[in-house]
Amino acid sequence: MNAHVGNIDRNTTEILRRMEEARADGCDLVIFPELAICGYSPLDLYWRDGFVEACQAAVDRITEASTGIGVIVGGLAAKSRQDLSNRDNISSLSDGALVNLYNRAFLIEDQSVIGYVDKQHLPSYDINCEGRYFTSGEGTSVHEFRGTKLGINVCEDLWIDDGPTDLQASLGAEWIVNVSASPFYVGKLIVRRRLASRRARENNVGVIYVNHVGGQDELVFDGGSLVFDAKGRQVFQAPCFREGVYVVDLDHATPVRSEAASDIETVHTALVLGIHDYVTKNGFEQVVIGLSGGIDSAVVAALASEALGPDNVICAYLPSEFSSTDSREDAIAFASNLGTPLQIIEITDTHHALRAALPLAPAGLVDENLQPRIRGTLLMALANQHRALVLCPGNKSEIAVGYNTLYGDTVGALAPIADLYKEQVYQLAASFGELIPQRIQTKAPSAELRANQRDQDDLPPYEVLDPILKQLIEANASKHQLVEQGFDEAVVMDVQRRIRITEHKRHQLPPGIKVSPKSFGSGRRIPLTNGYCE
Amino acid sequence: MNAHVGNIDRNTTEILRRMEEARADGCDLVIFPELAICGYSPLDLYWRDGFVEACQAAVDRITEASTGIGVIVGGLAAKSRQDLSNRDNISSLSDGALVNLYNRAFLIEDQSVIGYVDKQHLPSYDINCEGRYFTSGEGTSVHEFRGTKLGINVCEDLWIDDGPTDLQASLGAEWIVNVSASPFYVGKLIVRRRLASRRARENNVGVIYVNHVGGQDELVFDGGSLVFDAKGRQVFQAPCFREGVYVVDLDHATPVRSEAASDIETVHTALVLGIHDYVTKNGFEQVVIGLSGGIDSAVVAALASEALGPDNVICAYLPSEFSSTDSREDAIAFASNLGTPLQIIEITDTHHALRAALPLAPAGLVDENLQPRIRGTLLMALANQHRALVLCPGNKSEIAVGYNTLYGDTVGALAPIADLYKEQVYQLAASFGELIPQRIQTKAPSAELRANQRDQDDLPPYEVLDPILKQLIEANASKHQLVEQGFDEAVVMDVQRRIRITEHKRHQLPPGIKVSPKSFGSGRRIPLTNGYCE
Repeated sequence: MNAHVGNIDRNTTEILRRMEEARADGCDLVIFPELAICGYSPLDLYWRDGFVEACQAAVDRITEASTGIGVIVGGLAAKSRQDLSNRDNISSLSDGALVNLYNRAFLIEDQSVIGYVDKQHLPSYDINCEGRYFTSGEGTSVHEFRGTKLGINVCEDLWIDDGPTDLQASLGAEWIVNVSASPFYVGKLIVRRRLASRRARENNVGVIYVNHVGGQDELVFDGGSLVFDAKGRQVFQAPCFREGVYVVDLDHATPVRSEAASDIETVHTALVLGIHDYVTKNGFEQVVIGLSGGIDSAVVAALASEALGPDNVICAYLPSEFSSTDSREDAIAFASNLGTPLQIIEITDTHHALRAALPLAPAGLVDENLQPRIRGTLLMALANQHRALVLCPGNKSEIAVGYNTLYGDTVGALAPIADLYKEQVYQLAASFGELIPQRIQTKAPSAELRANQRDQDDLPPYEVLDPILKQLIEANASKHQLVEQGFDEAVVMDVQRRIRITEHKRHQLPPGIKVSPKSFGSGRRIPLTNGYCE
Repeated sequence: MNAHVGNIDRNTTEILRRMEEARADGCDLVIFPELAICGYSPLDLYWRDGFVEACQAAVDRITEASTGIGVIVGGLAAKSRQDLSNRDNISSLSDGALVNLYNRAFLIEDQSVIGYVDKQHLPSYDINCEGRYFTSGEGTSVHEFRGTKLGINVCEDLWIDDGPTDLQASLGAEWIVNVSASPFYVGKLIVRRRLASRRARENNVGVIYVNHVGGQDELVFDGGSLVFDAKGRQVFQAPCFREGVYVVDLDHATPVRSEAASDIETVHTALVLGIHDYVTKNGFEQVVIGLSGGIDSAVVAALASEALGPDNVICAYLPSEFSSTDSREDAIAFASNLGTPLQIIEITDTHHALRAALPLAPAGLVDENLQPRIRGTLLMALANQHRALVLCPGNKSEIAVGYNTLYGDTVGALAPIADLYKEQVYQLAASFGELIPQRIQTKAPSAELRANQRDQDDLPPYEVLDPILKQLIEANASKHQLVEQGFDEAVVMDVQRRIRITEHKRHQLPPGIKVSPKSFGSGRRIPLTNGYCE
């Protein structure tokens, strides 16, 4: 299910439609993911007066429509709001933190809620902050449904060793039904499969794992719902990144092979879905992309074209006096391949006007920064004129070291490849086949903000930089650990310094789309004012 | 204590220096705030390889230096890192979430750690996310120190009814020592006093409350450490917003009157400290402010001048063809009052160059947005040239409804008045006496981006808007509740819509300084893609 966060009416209507479809298919039970009613995650909307009540009313609608079919659906439950007026702690009061709110899976059949389970383990690592909102469920139960014993639990509760799953199995559950909201990163599906298989084998119990599909700000839910039999064999996998009613006959399930897409193909699909859903769920159709003639903007435009159609991708090339003939040719050739017209907007006059306006003539980095900021301004104007969103071309390597101009090339509503290291951007470009001209894929990267500039004059080569960044950002490595792994100490220290002094830039970036276990965004919280040096 | 987050060496050296000072003053015990060693809050730095170990080494330094004096100091403790290589949950693995980390208060004397207490209640509401990092402490203890029984606990543990404080009192504690990291908002000190007094009275126990001082990104810690006797009478209050060693003789303590500053005076002091610490802790001395001739930028410049000295405030006036003579005169008069030169930078030529560059001539909002973006670009250039930080003049009212231009007047490293409604900005302006010219304080607000523009042509009047915003943002009110309170339904719906569709702008703002129970920033998390409508 591809829910729309906060749009309770729309999500509930979709749930009802899918219930009809499942009933028509002769299903006993239809299972929707975690918090299917409100989408994942409404964040502080939980605390909005009326929000929980609206979600509870949706359960009533679903219950009324459940004649002849069983439904498991994720929603909310709250104890009655407490009178907090005598409390001293007015911050927690305004946050409603003292209202007991539960992340609940409802089991519904024939116009009755016949059971429910509240999530017990509330993740707070990475992008998760469920401890902010929810109270842990208590007690463990098994529900009998049409003669089969079901152990229903919610997302994280499947991941905990000696946790709710094991207890439910020991209480006689034949099938574990886990409703989940598990966002994509590269390799996550394999991790899920391994987990589901292990839980099944350890407990001699079948496992049904139901996940969300779709983009929500920085996250993409990849679906790929799974069924494992009690021997730990995969008997079903729903397609990844694709919403649908998938019917599994548990009495006649036989082992199936796993879907096998390469990592970069999976990233490609995830980013297309992430762009599509961000743009359309926010009520837009079109995007604006500034093509530099380089690889990052070309990849973003190619993804956007796949997500929205080439007619919805407005491409502009904004040359300055430092832009090369190659870049112009490459931008033109690529836009032509894409099948979208290219607007060419010269920025030199504006650049000169800005230079003349400044009391002190700009030089060096000051003059370089003027150019992307002019481009950012023009791209935003194009977006305003066409009612479109600007897509930001920044990649993870340059964002990590701050090799960008805040309010310049960082401008945008979404940064689709912000979680891809430069080396991955090359791989992704190749996944588009002939679409992106060869020269774009092979020439030396340059910001073209001064004569003969190349990234490698300012930064370590990406094949050196990227592995260091991965260790520092994703593994929280220390200098000591990196030096032990054979990296050059001076280079490591330089990269550490660049990351530390550019935290303020990342604070003001558009959301990126997460494809790694640790992306920049809400899952990584580093103080801007930070005196930590090893 | 005004700690520098992450700068463990510097903080520890300060702690040692203050221990010397306390010893010289003949003190038995010197008390530092929560997490004094690493500052509050290092956030994901906790997970950096070596960080916890560095904090533990600092405890050793402090312990070695504790001959003849007792010390209570906040720091970290971790159980040994576990081998997580077999875990499936690689997100939580990279976050080190499975390492048991404790937020600990150490009691040290004569080169020994003679006791410790771990924080039990880990707040996750508003700006807090301690559940992300810490494991709750267990068990309750009372420590005998030089013949007196101390119930030591950490911050939130004082706030919990029937919590650690009451239990420690029942175990015979004579004094509760609470080490805290409690950020400022208007009225917070009164809330703390009421709480400390109540805990003292309820349990017939003295309460010593020790807080941080200083700015850290969006937060200002206001100090104001407190001592209440067992009858619930305040016997000491440290000055607010001022670091120092404050000596209290508990055997001869007598009731004292409370410090009484008005709310707006307190906000004034908090913002000055917040600006000062953000700029200087990040290694800067100077700031750049674009004066519009209006009240917001004047107030920000006045605050910055108080924080950093007028010589460190670079003021620029950047008129377009729509800027009024009044604005020019007002900017000039104010800069003259401030005693800082005013750079006047005309933006009309650049504006015209941008208009000419766009394939489709800009009109309306598109043309209006060009102007603040030119200004943002020029202010950033000035900042680059002077190695200064730009301060953003946005106030809470305009930020809430998105009455600003992203990458234009939102540009900056810090937004000092981002948590002040427009009505509070007027009060704050008045608190500067003669500094801000009368006409700036009385004329109708205008962005001056088109001829004869006034805020009130585009927005509800601030005296209507501000109370609605306060209800929607700080009380999570619904339309229903506001209408019941007598607000006009159509106006409420319009304001709700404006807030909802401008969430993406706030995502990319510089940090503001929190002065209310609910500011924009990490304490308010609303999805950008949000389909919730009542």
